[in-house]
Amino acid sequence: MDFSSKLLENAVYEMSQLPGIGKRTALRLVLHLLKQPKEQTERLSNSLLSLRSEIKFCENCHNISDVAVCEICANPKRDRSLVCVVEDIRDVMAIENTSQYKGLYHVLGGKISPMEGIGPQDLTIGSLVEKAQKGEVKEFIFALSSTMEGDTTNFYIYKQLNGLDINTSTIARGIAVGDELEYADEVTLGRSILNRIPFEGSLKAN
Amino acid sequence: MDFSSKLLENAVYEMSQLPGIGKRTALRLVLHLLKQPKEQTERLSNSLLSLRSEIKFCENCHNISDVAVCEICANPKRDRSLVCVVEDIRDVMAIENTSQYKGLYHVLGGKISPMEGIGPQDLTIGSLVEKAQKGEVKEFIFALSSTMEGDTTNFYIYKQLNGLDINTSTIARGIAVGDELEYADEVTLGRSILNRIPFEGSLKAN
Ligand SMILES: [Zn+2]
Ligand SMILES: [Zn+2]
Repeated sequence: MDFSSKLLENAVYEMSQLPGIGKRTALRLVLHLLKQPKEQTERLSNSLLSLRSEIKFCENCHNISDVAVCEICANPKRDRSLVCVVEDIRDVMAIENTSQYKGLYHVLGGKISPMEGIGPQDLTIGSLVEKAQKGEVKEFIFALSSTMEGDTTNFYIYKQLNGLDINTSTIARGIAVGDELEYADEVTLGRSILNRIPFEGSLKAN
Repeated sequence: MDFSSKLLENAVYEMSQLPGIGKRTALRLVLHLLKQPKEQTERLSNSLLSLRSEIKFCENCHNISDVAVCEICANPKRDRSLVCVVEDIRDVMAIENTSQYKGLYHVLGGKISPMEGIGPQDLTIGSLVEKAQKGEVKEFIFALSSTMEGDTTNFYIYKQLNGLDINTSTIARGIAVGDELEYADEVTLGRSILNRIPFEGSLKAN
């Protein structure tokens, strides 16, 4: 593409760095902003800058939070012996939405993926093991999506917990194999948490 | 959606104000930015802010430009008696890409659309008529997409030029009726400019 303006070219280039946004779409979005009041662009840019520079993660569960300990972890009514292990904040939002789960979470920040160069040290697995060693947690519920990366990550964590007196379970697969957790309907997702099975059992089923 | 962070919620909301970007996609884009180096968010935000605050339009053709008179209008080799009337910068880029056209442009900034509340006064039609009255332009080529709004806009301009000694033509419809100009392949688009027909002729054909 040959732009008549360097300012326009830069904005389109940066917009097209977002996943799933091609050059053409980026140009359409940028031209849209130009037709809207200046304040819309300012609100968008400033909200992204604030988020990126002021973002905090809960020191207990690693979920995105505006305070040091998130609302869920700070809630005395939640069961601290039960920890649901998820990939990211979207999974926390999806499970909270079911109103079925009363334990805490542990947000890994991704899945082990040699293809994408993501190893165990890039995730919050070390912090999960420390948490397990403290003895308060009785059960980890693995709720990663059932892809190869999800299974690999589950199994890696399972091995790290070896020797500790902790139960591990996976959410029941009412959700189709390979489907992303966040797209599941609330009823299916809620039920799959209630009907969770021991992780060893799920290994035999494969 | 129930967010654990007001900063996150704001950023997702502002992102979802862009056309074609739903809440879910906005969340995915924002979480992507959080995983990238801080500099990426800064470059994106700053490029949008700079564009929106420093944006200029060529005082002759109204195309987006970083200088008062755009490169095309400033080029002494371009034929100043020929003016191609287009909707926005994407059409200029598409036509320039064919390397077939050596005249100038007039960027309207949209099409007359009562549905969207866009009237003639919201476009650069007044400036087009002034340009016509100066006598330098011998021909206006209407190159708006052949939708109802495009046809309405062409006809409105055509009537405004009534009484002036100026030819009007429309680009040849090698391009399928209803198709957007910017998605046409270069050969078809280039040919449709060379084979343009008088605007009156196109009226009889309908
Ligand atoms: Zn927390
Ligand atoms: Zn110009």
